[in-house]
Amino acid sequence: MATQTKVSSRRMRQGPLLEFVGYHVRLAQLYVYADFMRGQPEPTMTPGQLAILILVHENPGMTQRVLGERMGVDKSTLTVALDRLTRRKWLRRVRSREDRRSNVLELTAQGVRQMRRMIAFVRRHERRMMTSLSARERRELVRLLGKLRSPG
Amino acid sequence: MATQTKVSSRRMRQGPLLEFVGYHVRLAQLYVYADFMRGQPEPTMTPGQLAILILVHENPGMTQRVLGERMGVDKSTLTVALDRLTRRKWLRRVRSREDRRSNVLELTAQGVRQMRRMIAFVRRHERRMMTSLSARERRELVRLLGKLRSPG
Repeated sequence: MATQTKVSSRRMRQGPLLEFVGYHVRLAQLYVYADFMRGQPEPTMTPGQLAILILVHENPGMTQRVLGERMGVDKSTLTVALDRLTRRKWLRRVRSREDRRSNVLELTAQGVRQMRRMIAFVRRHERRMMTSLSARERRELVRLLGKLRSPG
Repeated sequence: MATQTKVSSRRMRQGPLLEFVGYHVRLAQLYVYADFMRGQPEPTMTPGQLAILILVHENPGMTQRVLGERMGVDKSTLTVALDRLTRRKWLRRVRSREDRRSNVLELTAQGVRQMRRMIAFVRRHERRMMTSLSARERRELVRLLGKLRSPG
């Protein structure tokens, strides 16, 4: 480790990292995230915020607890994210009609508009990212990623 | 959005999210991360910490600035990560022999040991994750993830 030679190659040597599929998944995810955030029209949102808006919209009457469980996100992280969306007036917590002790999540009219606007943006972002993949390769990528998540 | 029906299905409806390859990449990455952290022997480290240890080890004489550029990580995030590894005595910043004004990164002997121990762990973690993928599918997944990152 004592040798001090300038790293001159354009890229770093990545050694054993390259044999790890998990590393390639992480690099792809960083790339997707950066591309998602790039050239986004105002008001911007993160992929995570869009996912919450869509999931709340698609699952009426869902509580914060259930959303957290299904997304696999811990309570405090989700609370911060929901507070942020609430402050932007895209989401609100309303008293459940079935269980007066619990709140369910719902989008505001503005939240629905922002969600739709972003879905259109993401469709363009995805087309841009996918230019080098054929339709078959795209389907294969999704299939293999799904297989990774459900081993055995 | 006003309808309040209990979400009774085991999984949420995910609507347009499912058509986005980026969403599948993110779900896979969350799965990989959770599996990486699970059952890890003490002292634990994150995938990001292991990546830094390997990259520093593989690229002797690299400065923090170069590492940040190559990893695509901003200065403050990387500083926090490197400080953490320094406090654990796995990494140190040493004065460059070529340019006395800059520091280069190197692993301590203990850092090298921890890195090797973790590489062995990650190989087991990867085998566990990959049980449902054939060798061909594994290679295809890596190839398609790489293609996603370099469009055109």
